[in-house]
Amino acid sequence: MAEKRVWLFKEGNASMRNLLGGKGANLAEMTNAGLPVPPGLTITSDTCMEYIKAGHKMPKGLMDDVRKALSVVETEAGKKFGDATNPLLVSVRSGARLSMPGMMETILNLGLNDDTLHGMVKLTKNERFAYDSYRRFLTMFGSVVLHIDRDKFEHILDAIKGREGVRLDNDVSVEGLKEAVESYKKLIADETGNPFPQDPMDQLLLAIEAVFKSWNIPRAIAYRNHYKIPHEYGTAVNVQSMVFGNMGNTSATGVSFTRNPSTGENVFYGEYLTNAQGEDVVAGIRTPQPIARLSEEMPEIYNQYVDIAQKLEQHYKDIQDMEFTVERGKLYILQTRSGKRTSRAGIKIAVDMHKEGLISRERAVELVDPSQLYQLLLPSFDDAAKKVAKDEGKLLGSGLNASPGAATGAIVFDPAEAAEMGEAGKKIILVRIETCPDDIHGMIPSQGVLTSRGGMTSHAAVVARGMGKPCVAGAETIRIDLEKETLTTPDGQVFKKGAIISIDGGTGEIFAGSISTVPPAVGGDLETILEWADDIKRLDVRANADTPEDAKKAIELGARGIGLCRTEHMFMAQERLPVVQEMILAGSEEGRRNALAKLLPFQYQDFYEMFKTMGGLPVTVRLLDPPLHEFLPNHDELLAEVIELRVRGHKADLLAEKEVLLAKVEELRESNPMMGLRGCRLGLTFPEINEMQVRAIFEASCDLKKEGVDVKPEVMIPLVGHVNELKAAREQLEAVAQQVMDEKGIQVDYAFGTMIEIPRAALTAEKIAEYAQFFSFGTNDLTQMTFGYSRDDAEGKFLNSYVSRGILESNPFETLDQEGVGSLMKIAIEKGRSVRPDIKLGICGEHGGEARSVKFCHRIGLKYVSCSPYRVPIARLAAAHAVLEERAAGEHSTH
Amino acid sequence: MAEKRVWLFKEGNASMRNLLGGKGANLAEMTNAGLPVPPGLTITSDTCMEYIKAGHKMPKGLMDDVRKALSVVETEAGKKFGDATNPLLVSVRSGARLSMPGMMETILNLGLNDDTLHGMVKLTKNERFAYDSYRRFLTMFGSVVLHIDRDKFEHILDAIKGREGVRLDNDVSVEGLKEAVESYKKLIADETGNPFPQDPMDQLLLAIEAVFKSWNIPRAIAYRNHYKIPHEYGTAVNVQSMVFGNMGNTSATGVSFTRNPSTGENVFYGEYLTNAQGEDVVAGIRTPQPIARLSEEMPEIYNQYVDIAQKLEQHYKDIQDMEFTVERGKLYILQTRSGKRTSRAGIKIAVDMHKEGLISRERAVELVDPSQLYQLLLPSFDDAAKKVAKDEGKLLGSGLNASPGAATGAIVFDPAEAAEMGEAGKKIILVRIETCPDDIHGMIPSQGVLTSRGGMTSHAAVVARGMGKPCVAGAETIRIDLEKETLTTPDGQVFKKGAIISIDGGTGEIFAGSISTVPPAVGGDLETILEWADDIKRLDVRANADTPEDAKKAIELGARGIGLCRTEHMFMAQERLPVVQEMILAGSEEGRRNALAKLLPFQYQDFYEMFKTMGGLPVTVRLLDPPLHEFLPNHDELLAEVIELRVRGHKADLLAEKEVLLAKVEELRESNPMMGLRGCRLGLTFPEINEMQVRAIFEASCDLKKEGVDVKPEVMIPLVGHVNELKAAREQLEAVAQQVMDEKGIQVDYAFGTMIEIPRAALTAEKIAEYAQFFSFGTNDLTQMTFGYSRDDAEGKFLNSYVSRGILESNPFETLDQEGVGSLMKIAIEKGRSVRPDIKLGICGEHGGEARSVKFCHRIGLKYVSCSPYRVPIARLAAAHAVLEERAAGEHSTH
Repeated sequence: MAEKRVWLFKEGNASMRNLLGGKGANLAEMTNAGLPVPPGLTITSDTCMEYIKAGHKMPKGLMDDVRKALSVVETEAGKKFGDATNPLLVSVRSGARLSMPGMMETILNLGLNDDTLHGMVKLTKNERFAYDSYRRFLTMFGSVVLHIDRDKFEHILDAIKGREGVRLDNDVSVEGLKEAVESYKKLIADETGNPFPQDPMDQLLLAIEAVFKSWNIPRAIAYRNHYKIPHEYGTAVNVQSMVFGNMGNTSATGVSFTRNPSTGENVFYGEYLTNAQGEDVVAGIRTPQPIARLSEEMPEIYNQYVDIAQKLEQHYKDIQDMEFTVERGKLYILQTRSGKRTSRAGIKIAVDMHKEGLISRERAVELVDPSQLYQLLLPSFDDAAKKVAKDEGKLLGSGLNASPGAATGAIVFDPAEAAEMGEAGKKIILVRIETCPDDIHGMIPSQGVLTSRGGMTSHAAVVARGMGKPCVAGAETIRIDLEKETLTTPDGQVFKKGAIISIDGGTGEIFAGSISTVPPAVGGDLETILEWADDIKRLDVRANADTPEDAKKAIELGARGIGLCRTEHMFMAQERLPVVQEMILAGSEEGRRNALAKLLPFQYQDFYEMFKTMGGLPVTVRLLDPPLHEFLPNHDELLAEVIELRVRGHKADLLAEKEVLLAKVEELRESNPMMGLRGCRLGLTFPEINEMQVRAIFEASCDLKKEGVDVKPEVMIPLVGHVNELKAAREQLEAVAQQVMDEKGIQVDYAFGTMIEIPRAALTAEKIAEYAQFFSFGTNDLTQMTFGYSRDDAEGKFLNSYVSRGILESNPFETLDQEGVGSLMKIAIEKGRSVRPDIKLGICGEHGGEARSVKFCHRIGLKYVSCSPYRVPIARLAAAHAVLEERAAGEHSTH
Repeated sequence: MAEKRVWLFKEGNASMRNLLGGKGANLAEMTNAGLPVPPGLTITSDTCMEYIKAGHKMPKGLMDDVRKALSVVETEAGKKFGDATNPLLVSVRSGARLSMPGMMETILNLGLNDDTLHGMVKLTKNERFAYDSYRRFLTMFGSVVLHIDRDKFEHILDAIKGREGVRLDNDVSVEGLKEAVESYKKLIADETGNPFPQDPMDQLLLAIEAVFKSWNIPRAIAYRNHYKIPHEYGTAVNVQSMVFGNMGNTSATGVSFTRNPSTGENVFYGEYLTNAQGEDVVAGIRTPQPIARLSEEMPEIYNQYVDIAQKLEQHYKDIQDMEFTVERGKLYILQTRSGKRTSRAGIKIAVDMHKEGLISRERAVELVDPSQLYQLLLPSFDDAAKKVAKDEGKLLGSGLNASPGAATGAIVFDPAEAAEMGEAGKKIILVRIETCPDDIHGMIPSQGVLTSRGGMTSHAAVVARGMGKPCVAGAETIRIDLEKETLTTPDGQVFKKGAIISIDGGTGEIFAGSISTVPPAVGGDLETILEWADDIKRLDVRANADTPEDAKKAIELGARGIGLCRTEHMFMAQERLPVVQEMILAGSEEGRRNALAKLLPFQYQDFYEMFKTMGGLPVTVRLLDPPLHEFLPNHDELLAEVIELRVRGHKADLLAEKEVLLAKVEELRESNPMMGLRGCRLGLTFPEINEMQVRAIFEASCDLKKEGVDVKPEVMIPLVGHVNELKAAREQLEAVAQQVMDEKGIQVDYAFGTMIEIPRAALTAEKIAEYAQFFSFGTNDLTQMTFGYSRDDAEGKFLNSYVSRGILESNPFETLDQEGVGSLMKIAIEKGRSVRPDIKLGICGEHGGEARSVKFCHRIGLKYVSCSPYRVPIARLAAAHAVLEERAAGEHSTH
């Protein structure tokens, strides 16, 4: 005995998604919630598989069951299928258990034939509408169900339009439509060898079969392969009675939101048209009325609708975006779904709904999408103003969205000049081919930075992100001439020094002129949501911060510690760089130690202030990481200088000096610096550098502790790949730490640990954990090594193409690759805990501030995530979402 | 009741290593084999631990047991311990179960005191010898047992030498020695507060305690920590009676080998001196006699000795290196061990010993060290000639041993000139700062290549290794001036074009002038050993070969297939490079396709000949792998040219042309090319390149098959990190393959597979195996990514230092890192087999030709290893060793 194949909407509910499909289950849920949904029926997805497995044969008795259910629908609708005076028309739609674009589209107005057409004419008193509906139905049915080339229908209509001298379908005369209907029917008869099926039940049978078959069309199969949806799910078929808002002045149609989706205000919001179809509201031919007017025109309907809207919001516990139709004085709800809203509105709605008692705090937190928060925390261009600028042709080009935020200012090419102008309070954009450490003093006072070369990890990008300053990097179509001080666009527009431009670091766009901005939304509601999130989450959230200023910002945004302090950023400052260069150029350990002695007070001061700011919260300090040549002048520029000096044959002293410098730069130069002498390799090669850094950390810690300030320094060794590296570094540096503490006569609580950012470290974590009190996953480098991608090269050269072609699901530098990099992390965690069960585990790659990645970190059992200060709110919220998803999964699994 | 603590040599045997230590067990074994070993006893290592655990207290009754055993020794030796007329002297030595340098050294002549000294004088009739022995004993005992600073003994002797006006200890007069003995005894009394212990049993007690204590001296503990030797093993103590070869003309001493260790000839080999001590043979003051003379001088002793030697060789089944002493007409064997031999001799000895029925084939194979084979297969400099050259100051410097072999020739700097001279039959060495593809025509005719810049994977190194041509790369202390055509050494010697130099690619040394070479030893015995090895091994051995010539060499050296054909090396040839450059510089797909069409016939011809050579053996062809800029001119040189042209301001046409080229080179340039646009990323970005390659492979395969030649092409996609890359590439390229086969009307057996060289590929191997019929581990890149080391940078900058400091055990690019990289390989194998149990697994990194790595590959279950042709014999032999080790472990585990 077969299962029940045909279900009336009123027989189902939302939990029957697997059988009735997503659409069918939702229609059933609304029906049973007492909403006036146009009645209908659903044929189960199992029936579809029965049909396919039987070799495209309809199960016996299926159409009898459909006819039986349809009778109930007729009764409820007060119309009859195929009846010439009061015909029931239906829509037929596919609906699988998972949303699956690419399958059969909707067929509307099924049931129309030469007889029922006349019924429609009388009912609607609109011959034009009836014939136009018939024409559309014949086109849809002919092409989708009978597989006749859609163009053939279009050609017929085009010929009529040509003859009538009109351009739009809507302008075709009634006579023209009548002619089209006749020609369509002839076309169908010619193409299929059979007349167009006038019997509505025949139409329905064919339409249902077409939906069944569409489950296995190539694009549907390809889609399921891609998303790993099992091929044996099948699709359900929904047959629903049609209603019309254009049956006179007691009919209407409209859309509305239960709250304002732009501001979040709790006011009913929407618009409608009387005697109109859904398309008319959207098309803008007639101006729709605000929804409030309906209370005057159709007060009862309005009250009923508001009542339903409130119920729906309470039922779904979210702002609803609804479509409704009034057919001759009767209200129908055609659709309701969660309403799209702005980030700002979303936060307000969530907080309000909790305050109204509608939802729990947890649900409120759940309703806010963490990934939307970032833009709220930075000033951004007004979208409308941007659109105007684009329409006016002011978009000059685009580069990489290297550091988000909006900036407007006068172009300056020379960093020294930028520094001067900045001090004079001018708003400027620093424009360079690329930046180097020498340019920092010009970046600091700029509103934003624009470069024509370099990737997401180029100097400009990294430094700008560190500063929280907007940056568009690698805008390769823009030509920058530093000598002439001009910026030239691809179409030849030339911008000179002083010209005003605007850059959008969030999108990478570059505009001529200024564009108005909207201020960041660090309002009370966001604060509230984040506090609620903090109550829920288990992950700690720290910030990556390199300066005392960063640390203050981090605290402000809710960080509970610093997970990554990149000490080399302290080396980049204007007055320090020459000393760093002196150290690098020194040919002996003694020379290096002399220079390092000069750097010690700077580092001491930085750590002192940072530890003080963090007041007892943990601060993880990573010892020097980048290759030394990053602190030296650019090789190619230096080479060019030297050659020029040689050819010109004068200034012998200058030449000699530059040649020495060039020789050193070439000595330090590497084929693949990402995999060269950096990280702990540097520290083990020149131990005096790390010794100075550790001395600075512990002198500052001891002094603060003496002043009564609590400190928790965590010393982190970067780029460890073999336990012996960590062992050697730790033994050497812990001795220095102890020496400082002995000198100061005070003991500080500290921890020694390592980054896990080299695949080998993850693979041998049980060895490394013997010497590491904590692991911090450096997922930027770990992603580079695990994929074998140099981020700087990959993003410009092939990575974006990989993502757009679907070879990679997403950019692994933005969203953590759970399958590959994630599996290494799991290996490291398991092995690390096997020898040190209480090892502290965190992440300090950029992924620590990306919502999906944060949730993954929660699931694999990290203790904290650390990210740039502006991403801290995202991480806090995502960490709470992780807990809520876990609870939901737990509840689910107990069913 | 305590275990037996003291064992006579005759009570033990070789299997008692754990209890008696290595030395004690061996002495016991020899004793029981009936050899005339001077009698002695061993105190067990457990006793040492008893002593240590009791807080340095001798176990009760131990010395009684020692005394008891010593009585037996006295009887056997016919001497008495402490007897004034016929004294027994003994040596006391430590001996743990594992060889462990760093512990207590030997104490000789223990038992000497003022009384026994006189006995010795009478016995040896050599007052000088007796006093010298006493002096030495006092020094050893005083410093090692009583911990008196050794310098204090030296100072006393120095004073005497100074007074006597002699330089050597041997020249001190007997009176001087007597004075020294008295002063030493006084020194001991002064330093310890007790007189020197005259009682031999007291001496023995103290010496045994000193050995026990030495187990826990810091350097011994450190050594055990490093090698992970358990601290509770303890050390045994060996007390052995001394014999003297200098007791007159019926005494003698000598060393000998059972066969000639230099040639392997089966003749008794060695030398001796009558009335002499062991040191005298080595010191070269008297000229030793060839061992054959002993048959005349002491015929009975000689016969006895030869007989023993033969027994020992049969017992240990290996050539023996023996020390003997004849004391007053009685022969003693002091030591026997496996004799060190040259590679050449080792092979001959192994084959001979099997033919003599002495050892099995397996044992013969086991006796040859795979890692010694490589040098045999290349001509090499005569070691003696090299030593002479060094002594004459002709060593000019050294670089990386980039490609082994010896080469001598005239310096040429210009590749074009090298090509000319090579054609004229001159022997030349191409000397460049670094090489690029444009230089290939100059490398081909050279004997060898020397560069002053670049690492083990620099162009020169890689190409030279591929050609089997000696290369010294990155000799940074050598200054090369290409304009002046001079090579300058660090000490200022200048070598002009045409000067003769010699380079040793196996050591990296560079010499002035020519050095004589010895030819490669591809003799019959090596062939025999390798055939025996083939019968034992299970691993298949293939070769990495890029040209038909390589393939021929591979077959000659026993490869059973090609595991890696790097198609880009086919692109490097002189006449092809311009076409490759044309392809790269083309701005459109059409332009690239035009150039590729010109390359197709070249690739076709290469594959045709290579497949034909391999005649049905599998050939794995890797599609284009390196970044495209490797085919273009060097960036810095081009930049220099452009700047020079700009400054000079003439030749505008040339400047424009160079600027275009520079722009393209800069466009293709990457920050980290190793992790950039290469491998399958290149193929997916420019699909037409791989399509051409696959077309060439299949056209050649089809044509050969039509001619009746069997072909087995395996198409390999490099640098896959995500299954979708392989899927996309395979779908695209299998379509091309099928198209070619359809065109040719013939079907070819082929396989599609991938390199596993990106960590992510290993971690997700279960996905990748769905689309790969084989995995070939590319352990060069896999090592780079797993460690995060760029080989080019790491070896020069920190890797060598890591190895010498013990941070890494060995260079992971030479010996596979089993712990890290190996664990990734294991993951990949397990995951790959989980979805495709019959997946073919191989390795084609350089490790495939390194003995330890080959054994690892065997253990983890690979089907084949592939390496450069000259390493094929190493791999064959190592693969056999892997099986033999496995069998031994199996036998071991059944005990």
